[in-house]
Order: sequence, then structure tokens, then C-alpha cells
Amino acid sequence: MEKKRPLILITNDDGYLAKGINSLIDSVKDLGDILVVAPDGPRSGMSSAITSLQPLRAHLLKDTPEFKLYTCTGTPVDCVKLGINELAERKPDIVLSGINHGSNAAVAVLYSGTMGAAMEGAVFKVPSIGFSLLDHSVNADFSATSKYIKLLTKQVLNNGLPNGTCLNVNIPKGNNIEGIKVCRQTSGQWVGEFIKSKDGANKQIYWLTGEFANDEPHDENTDEWALAHNYVSVVSIKVDMTNHKHLEEIKDWEKLV
Amino acid sequence: MEKKRPLILITNDDGYLAKGINSLIDSVKDLGDILVVAPDGPRSGMSSAITSLQPLRAHLLKDTPEFKLYTCTGTPVDCVKLGINELAERKPDIVLSGINHGSNAAVAVLYSGTMGAAMEGAVFKVPSIGFSLLDHSVNADFSATSKYIKLLTKQVLNNGLPNGTCLNVNIPKGNNIEGIKVCRQTSGQWVGEFIKSKDGANKQIYWLTGEFANDEPHDENTDEWALAHNYVSVVSIKVDMTNHKHLEEIKDWEKLV
Repeated sequence: MEKKRPLILITNDDGYLAKGINSLIDSVKDLGDILVVAPDGPRSGMSSAITSLQPLRAHLLKDTPEFKLYTCTGTPVDCVKLGINELAERKPDIVLSGINHGSNAAVAVLYSGTMGAAMEGAVFKVPSIGFSLLDHSVNADFSATSKYIKLLTKQVLNNGLPNGTCLNVNIPKGNNIEGIKVCRQTSGQWVGEFIKSKDGANKQIYWLTGEFANDEPHDENTDEWALAHNYVSVVSIKVDMTNHKHLEEIKDWEKLV
Repeated sequence: MEKKRPLILITNDDGYLAKGINSLIDSVKDLGDILVVAPDGPRSGMSSAITSLQPLRAHLLKDTPEFKLYTCTGTPVDCVKLGINELAERKPDIVLSGINHGSNAAVAVLYSGTMGAAMEGAVFKVPSIGFSLLDHSVNADFSATSKYIKLLTKQVLNNGLPNGTCLNVNIPKGNNIEGIKVCRQTSGQWVGEFIKSKDGANKQIYWLTGEFANDEPHDENTDEWALAHNYVSVVSIKVDMTNHKHLEEIKDWEKLV
């Protein structure tokens, strides 16, 4: 019996028409059969949001033995859930999300729909990777990403990932990439987050904006350091968010009642 | 100079009219000044989603020196960001989120708007707690929760939490609570997630549903075990999602290029 090619489930948060997801598809289409289940429009900043109060719809736009493309009305996580539970003919061997137009390094991993989808793959115990390019523009140049995407996708297909773990891969802008750094999530937060403005009826509105304030700009083990020095950052991300050390410190709170 | 009372920022994901948030306010109003910034309607399952493509609006509905209530058009995380950055007159001493109508134990922490808001407090280095009751009903009975909410809020106000850490507190339904268990996030996933149905035009739709399949039902250190045995579960949650152990295992991937 012929061995089946790997099934690669692909999604993103910028929608199926984005340049990034089409670049991702081009980079990995020779590595396996492709099932795309992607939002029908932009879903940036959706984190791991799920849709429960509205129904979901999926539309099959392309259908060949090696390549299927569904659009979905839901969030990136909805796309992964619908893809694995309902649309895939067999369990995917890997979930790839992106390529996001813009960074998902540091604390952006919390807000990112791209990474929400990758984490959802990890919840299903499917090895998963989220890819992002540090360029927000619609016409971002993804040409330098393909080499790293192929390499990391092959590594994960061959070696797997621990259960409940996915990779957050960010790629610097431009063609002068120094290599890969395996690193940790940078500590920091966004500051100056709102621009105040008025709507058409002269009422107060707030637009989310801001910039990242890095708590540890000189730490070579962080993803922000790697990216600032033109390395591809590879952070291993767990869906188990337990702070085990702190649990020990507060164990005696059980005796308060 | 008289010492100011603690400022308690309160939000939720069920909206400002929900019974749960009003029960939370009642439980802690004697512990400090209250600033509520809550969604103007239901935002369940919003995770750490943020609103960047639409403007945010806030409406001041109640305004006394000890108690202010704003509704917000955004997500739970938007409420925390807007509250801390724009609406609070000083930095909050604690962020409380909930009481959610329904469990946020185990992997639900990833999808929960209640916990998204608590994690956002942790990003701002403000000690934060998300509270949930294991009862989805609109008219859930919150009477047994007050004792535990007061106790844990006082503990955190007095002792703080490590930076980037918040608590995920789930409370069993009913009045026979055995006590508190400090425990870790249970491993598992949701299964049987979709009900297929037809819309008014006879087109295929999918409704998200399903039930939690516990990977470790007999492990006494997990939050699902605590709740199944009628304990309040207290899980310490980190916004740094790095899998440090796995980083070491893949460090040599740096040499692939």
C-alpha cells in the first residue's frame, strides 16, 4: 500500500485572499496534500476566540485531490476546529497558520489570531506552527520566508512536537536574514495604546494603537532580540499556562478556609 | 495624608447586566473603590481578542466617588486596556473578572473572555483574578461564591502576585463546597464539537458545541479533579507561554541553516 502524503491544514487570520497565506501555500505544497480552511475576511487580533452564538458556514472554493480550499465565516480557531472535525478526510499531520502580515513576537502571541490557530492545532495534539513576517503592509515581500518555512515544516513533520506545544515563528523583513534563533517569549507590554478621536456625531471614540515597551531589550535569549538582530525567531509555546513555581508558593492558601 | 482605598477594576465577558458581575461587585465593594468597565453585551468565547479595525466607545452609566460604571463596545481585553489607560484616575490595585456563568477550567482558559481580561491585567503587571461559577444559566445562584471571592481578593491585595501571573478561580455549583485546592490546568480537549444544521435557505451551517474529554481524570493535582470533588480550584496562570524544556531540545535547529 502506498504511503499517503502528509495532510497539511493551513489557515491564517488575514483571510484567504491575503498575500501571506498564498505565499505559505506555495512554500509547502510540495511537502504534502493541502487543506486550506481560512477566514473569508480579516480576523486580526482574534486571539483564540470561538464562535458559539452564531452558526458557522464553510464554502468549498477549490477541490482537487492535492488541494482543497474552504473559506469559513468564523475565527481562526473556528477554522481549525471545523477543519479537523468536519472538513478533513483524515487527521492532519500538521497545522500551519499565516504567514501573518506583521509581528506576533513577545506578548502579541496572546492577541494573535494566527497564533490562536496554531495553539488550537496543539490542543488537538497535531504539531503546529504559526508564521509571521515583520511587515504589516498588504503587499509585503514574502520572498525570503520560503526557505525557513520549508525547513521548519520539514523538521516538525519529521520530528513532531511535544503534545500541547506549537511553534511561534517570526521572520525579519528584508533579505539579510542571519539565521535561526531558538528563543523565549519576550516580557513587555504595549504602551500609549489609544488615540482619541470623534465620530461623525462628534462623540468620543478610541482607536487601539500603541507600541511595544520591551522589559528586557538586551537579553539575547528573547524573540525580540533575535528579530532586532535579523534572526528568524522560533519560540516553543505551551497551551498549559500553569505557573507551577507560583502554585507551590500559594499552596498554603488551601488552609485559609 | 489619608491612605487611599484600593482601586478595584472589574470586568467580565457576559456583559454589564449579567447576574455574575453584579454578584462580584457586591462581594468586593467594601474592599475598595470600584471601577467597572464591562462589555455592553455578551462577549463569551472572546479569549484575548482586541478591536483594532473598529473604534471603541465607552459610556459612563454610574458615577459616585466610590463606584463608577462604564459600558464599553469592545471585548473584555479592550475593557481592561481602556480602563487602565484612559478611564481609571489612578493605576488599579487589582483587576477582577467575572463571575463567569460557566466553567473556565482546563483548556477553556484559552477561549475564555473572562480569563482574557484577567491575563490582560497581568500583562499590565496588576494582580488579577478571573472568577467562574460552574453554572451556565442566566439565573445561576452565586450566593456560595462570595466567601471565596472576598477571601482570595484580600489575599491577592495583601500579597500580590508575581509579574505576568493571574489566578483562574472556578467555583463548583451548589452550597456544599469542601474548600480550596491550589492546582494546575488539566490537559484535555473538547470533542464532538459541531452540530450540523440547515439555515432558512436550506444551506449547511455548523453550531459549536461538544464536551470536554479529560486526559487525566484521576490526577488530584488538576483543576477538573478539584471541581469534580466540590473544591474551589485556584490555578496560577502565566502570560509567558514559552515551553522552556522544549527550547533546549530544539536548540540545535539553529544549525540547520
